Amino acid sequence: MENIFEKYESEVRSYCRTFPKEFTKSKGAIIEDIDGNKYIDFFDGAGALNYGHNHDYIKDKLIDYLKKDGIIHSLDMYTTPKKEFIQFFEEKVLIPRNLNYKIQFTGPTGTNAVEAALKLARKVKKRENIFALMGCFHGMTLGSLALTSDKDSRKGAGLPLTNVTHIPTPYMFDNLNIVEYLDKILSDDHSGVDKPAAIIIETVQAEGGIYVFDNKFLQGVRAICDKHDILLIVDDIQVGCARTGTFFSFERAGIIPDMVVMSKSIGGYGMPMALTLIRPELDIWKPAEHNGTFRGNQLSMVAAKAGLEVMLNEKVEKQVKDKEKIVKKYLEENINHDNVEIRGIGLIWGIDVHSEELSKKIVNECFNNGLILERAGRENRVVKIMPPLTIDNDVLLEGLEILSKAISKILK
Amino acid sequence: MENIFEKYESEVRSYCRTFPKEFTKSKGAIIEDIDGNKYIDFFDGAGALNYGHNHDYIKDKLIDYLKKDGIIHSLDMYTTPKKEFIQFFEEKVLIPRNLNYKIQFTGPTGTNAVEAALKLARKVKKRENIFALMGCFHGMTLGSLALTSDKDSRKGAGLPLTNVTHIPTPYMFDNLNIVEYLDKILSDDHSGVDKPAAIIIETVQAEGGIYVFDNKFLQGVRAICDKHDILLIVDDIQVGCARTGTFFSFERAGIIPDMVVMSKSIGGYGMPMALTLIRPELDIWKPAEHNGTFRGNQLSMVAAKAGLEVMLNEKVEKQVKDKEKIVKKYLEENINHDNVEIRGIGLIWGIDVHSEELSKKIVNECFNNGLILERAGRENRVVKIMPPLTIDNDVLLEGLEILSKAISKILK
Amino acid sequence: MENIFEKYESEVRSYCRTFPKEFTKSKGAIIEDIDGNKYIDFFDGAGALNYGHNHDYIKDKLIDYLKKDGIIHSLDMYTTPKKEFIQFFEEKVLIPRNLNYKIQFTGPTGTNAVEAALKLARKVKKRENIFALMGCFHGMTLGSLALTSDKDSRKGAGLPLTNVTHIPTPYMFDNLNIVEYLDKILSDDHSGVDKPAAIIIETVQAEGGIYVFDNKFLQGVRAICDKHDILLIVDDIQVGCARTGTFFSFERAGIIPDMVVMSKSIGGYGMPMALTLIRPELDIWKPAEHNGTFRGNQLSMVAAKAGLEVMLNEKVEKQVKDKEKIVKKYLEENINHDNVEIRGIGLIWGIDVHSEELSKKIVNECFNNGLILERAGRENRVVKIMPPLTIDNDVLLEGLEILSKAISKILK
Amino acid sequence: MENIFEKYESEVRSYCRTFPKEFTKSKGAIIEDIDGNKYIDFFDGAGALNYGHNHDYIKDKLIDYLKKDGIIHSLDMYTTPKKEFIQFFEEKVLIPRNLNYKIQFTGPTGTNAVEAALKLARKVKKRENIFALMGCFHGMTLGSLALTSDKDSRKGAGLPLTNVTHIPTPYMFDNLNIVEYLDKILSDDHSGVDKPAAIIIETVQAEGGIYVFDNKFLQGVRAICDKHDILLIVDDIQVGCARTGTFFSFERAGIIPDMVVMSKSIGGYGMPMALTLIRPELDIWKPAEHNGTFRGNQLSMVAAKAGLEVMLNEKVEKQVKDKEKIVKKYLEENINHDNVEIRGIGLIWGIDVHSEELSKKIVNECFNNGLILERAGRENRVVKIMPPLTIDNDVLLEGLEILSKAISKILK
Repeated sequence: MENIFEKYESEVRSYCRTFPKEFTKSKGAIIEDIDGNKYIDFFDGAGALNYGHNHDYIKDKLIDYLKKDGIIHSLDMYTTPKKEFIQFFEEKVLIPRNLNYKIQFTGPTGTNAVEAALKLARKVKKRENIFALMGCFHGMTLGSLALTSDKDSRKGAGLPLTNVTHIPTPYMFDNLNIVEYLDKILSDDHSGVDKPAAIIIETVQAEGGIYVFDNKFLQGVRAICDKHDILLIVDDIQVGCARTGTFFSFERAGIIPDMVVMSKSIGGYGMPMALTLIRPELDIWKPAEHNGTFRGNQLSMVAAKAGLEVMLNEKVEKQVKDKEKIVKKYLEENINHDNVEIRGIGLIWGIDVHSEELSKKIVNECFNNGLILERAGRENRVVKIMPPLTIDNDVLLEGLEILSKAISKILK
Repeated sequence: MENIFEKYESEVRSYCRTFPKEFTKSKGAIIEDIDGNKYIDFFDGAGALNYGHNHDYIKDKLIDYLKKDGIIHSLDMYTTPKKEFIQFFEEKVLIPRNLNYKIQFTGPTGTNAVEAALKLARKVKKRENIFALMGCFHGMTLGSLALTSDKDSRKGAGLPLTNVTHIPTPYMFDNLNIVEYLDKILSDDHSGVDKPAAIIIETVQAEGGIYVFDNKFLQGVRAICDKHDILLIVDDIQVGCARTGTFFSFERAGIIPDMVVMSKSIGGYGMPMALTLIRPELDIWKPAEHNGTFRGNQLSMVAAKAGLEVMLNEKVEKQVKDKEKIVKKYLEENINHDNVEIRGIGLIWGIDVHSEELSKKIVNECFNNGLILERAGRENRVVKIMPPLTIDNDVLLEGLEILSKAISKILK
Repeated sequence: MENIFEKYESEVRSYCRTFPKEFTKSKGAIIEDIDGNKYIDFFDGAGALNYGHNHDYIKDKLIDYLKKDGIIHSLDMYTTPKKEFIQFFEEKVLIPRNLNYKIQFTGPTGTNAVEAALKLARKVKKRENIFALMGCFHGMTLGSLALTSDKDSRKGAGLPLTNVTHIPTPYMFDNLNIVEYLDKILSDDHSGVDKPAAIIIETVQAEGGIYVFDNKFLQGVRAICDKHDILLIVDDIQVGCARTGTFFSFERAGIIPDMVVMSKSIGGYGMPMALTLIRPELDIWKPAEHNGTFRGNQLSMVAAKAGLEVMLNEKVEKQVKDKEKIVKKYLEENINHDNVEIRGIGLIWGIDVHSEELSKKIVNECFNNGLILERAGRENRVVKIMPPLTIDNDVLLEGLEILSKAISKILK
Repeated sequence: MENIFEKYESEVRSYCRTFPKEFTKSKGAIIEDIDGNKYIDFFDGAGALNYGHNHDYIKDKLIDYLKKDGIIHSLDMYTTPKKEFIQFFEEKVLIPRNLNYKIQFTGPTGTNAVEAALKLARKVKKRENIFALMGCFHGMTLGSLALTSDKDSRKGAGLPLTNVTHIPTPYMFDNLNIVEYLDKILSDDHSGVDKPAAIIIETVQAEGGIYVFDNKFLQGVRAICDKHDILLIVDDIQVGCARTGTFFSFERAGIIPDMVVMSKSIGGYGMPMALTLIRPELDIWKPAEHNGTFRGNQLSMVAAKAGLEVMLNEKVEKQVKDKEKIVKKYLEENINHDNVEIRGIGLIWGIDVHSEELSKKIVNECFNNGLILERAGRENRVVKIMPPLTIDNDVLLEGLEILSKAISKILK
């Protein structure tokens, strides 16, 4: 019998095809379907639920705010929750890290924050080109989509995607120093590659296949940007908010981007929110030059501040570092099949089985055994482990066990 | 003393410059600032709050849902609130209107829904060009921005905006029949204007200056689309959800668009949400060809369904038609200054004072007297009246009175 | 039997399909095929042979120059023929007309001169958009092709053609004042039409269907350019070199373009040559910023100067004015069929039979009777009369007679 | 005293700044200025004069043709000289080399032939992107300019140059196998690099700095094109017509391009001409889909055929191979300074002095001593030796001696 989704929801729907259940409830790292089946969540709302599903601390703040009829929707007017979020974010997140950014609240999607960063970079530098890395994902609206590297997404544009140059990555070519490559094509007056306004980079390419860029590379890219007067934009939408063990993923490399785009878990409770952080001297926006109706959703502001409080109170960064060891150890000890590669940092890991068919079978097997996770990377060959950062260790291990067994079964 | 917003929020902020207060609470048509001052809201979250601020019916549903730990964030997986929303929307909204659309849940911003529609139109028709109307506003991400007509927004792109042809509107040229104009340039093998995949249109141009397109024009555009095998996309983001007296703004013209983009008030409670409605035979999306992290925010689904219930239960369409008369009558009787033009339909009205300076003074005067409204249109010369549709008649009249007095004072 | 052309020359060949003979000789207004058949030439090399085929005065100069081993190819180095051409052009053509232009010798094709003008306009004004007129033709390379208005040519690009806005023409819309239209969309801050660097215009649209723009319109466009700080480029490739009765076609309107592009008959003898004339204050080119191997073909320089001498010595402008009367009178008296429209100026005339099929039959009938002419305009419905300007009156009348009979026969 | 050129010719002029004399006559490898000074020509009209200046055999044909009033200008109609050229080219040039191409006569500039090839490639493959190589030069009109790699030329566009991806070259990165690089980014579904319709390549990058691609690389590129269903276009404008020792420069590698673009010396006598050669199965042009007024200049056809006769009769290919040895030996023995690199093949050689200032001084010193040559490459650091292929050996050696002395003097 055709269900209501198949009948009425667009064919564009996707994850529901892998996990064809109707979900109703969730808590921490557990999702429950309508039949009462429970699933361990190693998918984490694609990174939007770093503090777990329905965290009680945040939930209480939301209910309180709703109850007292706090203003909900206010565009970009001044409000109390926004004031409190900004203050908390500056004082508790940025200043302790010696970071100095102004905050732009964009439409509450990651791609919108990316588009804002691209616009501002082009405006500041008066150049049209942007460098993005092969393997990257930055969103689906036209400006971001020109960055995004996967073929199927790009074809969806129905237009040539222009004004972006894709740069190879260190993991793609053994003998090519990418930092030198950048320097060379930027210095060469006959490279044909137009000098970009900015280089945009994820410190860990998630959709590309869970590739962690090492600190030296990140520092090298920063240095190239300095040398050639190019802005560095870090897209921390998926691996920010402590995913890699520090709030910002670039902290480990000691670099300071010119702009940072954030979304997903910044909303604290899975609430839609997105930010573009801007070095103050670059903040040459004119009023309303980039706007959007939902950039001032106050429930998101409330959840966002509460999420940051959870992050600090529960020492989530520390938790991640501890759990990274657990995951790493577990995978190394239990996943040692031929032609399987393990990559990751913090609580984002990929098991590259080098086969689209096998990865699919593994994911299905896991789901049948109560574990939700997704695939990523070239031809979707990488099984991706991305649990909530606050997951209990025993649940984490239980999930890993389901996964390990599924891999063993499928890879035999 | 510099406040926290001026210090830390990007210069792009805008409405807060017109209404420089910290707002805290809201209910119905009233917003309250931190000092306890109350304001009548004729701005309505730019159209996102058609059922009023913090409507109790919706609020209760939200609190209930939060309390029972309903799943909040689920990407595009199947969930109970989504099922209920879809079912309600199809059965209570579309089918009674003899409309047959599949629903695409896009990233929860209007611009994202527009981008999805553009992609799909280009994919279906295998053509790159899109026709948009002079005076239109469709969003700020690169694909939508190419449509959006105002100069300042366009300059923000930092790129040439391409693959869109702007078409003059009936109100711009007295002796030019725009439907014939369209037919002519589409029929002419030497017009130089590439045949578009789609024409996108607002039935009332809000940002353009509150211009209501008459039914004959809308029907003419539909006929041209049929004749030339072009898709018709109606952007009902601002004037849908009963703003003009019917749920969809195009109902009055008896036309059926091929796609409809919705956002703003579809979220019921000011919650971020956006939809692209698609005639089923056009739904050739491949899974995940357009995606986004927050397209499955369940609080928005809950609020959206509750909002539709309010719309039906409180006969909001009927209310609008009644209040339209009140506003129209009031304005005709009270605003009769030289060089002032009044335009509108339903509960969206513009008072064109033909002067950027005067409109600004009027808005400021209103704010000082407890009324929030904004400006729109060419050079921001139009004072825009857009209260919640559920506003009490006496509050509506009170707001109109403040406005009328302000206009009289400023225009002397 | 398949001939050598069909076997080896690309399918792109075109005029040879209408005139499938092998041509060998030519003189004045007469072309001869390999079988000794003679044809009156009302096609004129698409406007490249204004002084007739193989004019003896020019021919002698060419043979002399070849014989004395004058340098033939010299890129953009200084040469004696170039010096003499420049001097003659400035002193005998520009200065007497109170015109002050610097000369850029571009690659010897019209499209190259257009591309140079576009580049320079964009560079000077730092804007990307260009306005072109519906019905225009400006060439086939990518930059020019974006201007060119006919559908089939545009499709050949294989790319979206961007950064050009096509403007309707006076003959297209009876009640639309195009000069006011331009002013309105340029003044409107919500037109969505990006301000152009330049407007490019042919004073007579030849490929568009032989439409002569009246002086008032041309003056209006010039005024709009002045008002809005936009450059005016006149493309005089086809109707310059005295075709309309004055050397430059815009002289009749008393306007001064900021740039003029010339080609075709500027080469005097059908020799490849193209010029971009530039108001001196706009000549901000950097050395070699636009170059090309054949911009210094000295045979073309020799022919060009000799051609200008012919133009002056034989009072070609005067001849055109006289012959215009002959053609006009003849056509008015002899071509008076229903649904046939006659348009023209100088020695470029179109007979619009409003049918692609009929125009084709007429052209074929003419060819069979010894007259070569081509079609132009929307759907090729216009039979185009464009003889050499130096044609003898009796040959001119003979050609007109063949044409008149063909029309009568075909239209019955 | 300001001369006529400085007063009236656009600032874009360039070579005349290096060689500020008025030239009048030329013969073989010698150019003469107005004062009777003679210069050995190692510049060769940028490659347009491979058979020398004013070759008597060709000259006689031109004079004969002029004298007998052969048709000069005929667009793309059939003519006797065109027939004879096609026949000769097919039978004496293509068939003996086992090549099978149809010929498109484009507007007579190299850039026009490139634009035609790009259009056709995009049309055939229905893809927008083209791969070009870093260091390449393919022309100055918008489509070609997007390929051309040097920064200053690109800036002249006044537009973002799009739909081209620039590929690094073997000489740029020691440890990067470019053929593998191509394969990898074309195979990777996340490279972000859109699959191109074609790869366009010069077998020797002249403007890039005289870099000769080895046969293995050329074969590798051909193989990649086959593997990924991409067209291979060889731009033989500068190094075709026997410059490298075979008529087509790609013969040495044993590869067969899908299209070949030719210009410069194909005109035989420095006459403007350009061809796009097309594998017959790709010739899907519609009539007139790419056109141009001067694609049928019959003097060029006459000169082109005569030039090919010279090429065969005088065994120019053999001459080049012999003279290559002379030049190579001379340079190796006489130019052995620190930090100077010599590169070349056939009769195109570069002396890379790694300094813009030094290369300029050398060129000036040569000119003062009666030798004309130009610079090329990154920052113009390469002195370029490109004499006519028919140069007498003693003149060749005399020129080399002037050059050698100049280098010694400047580099000390």
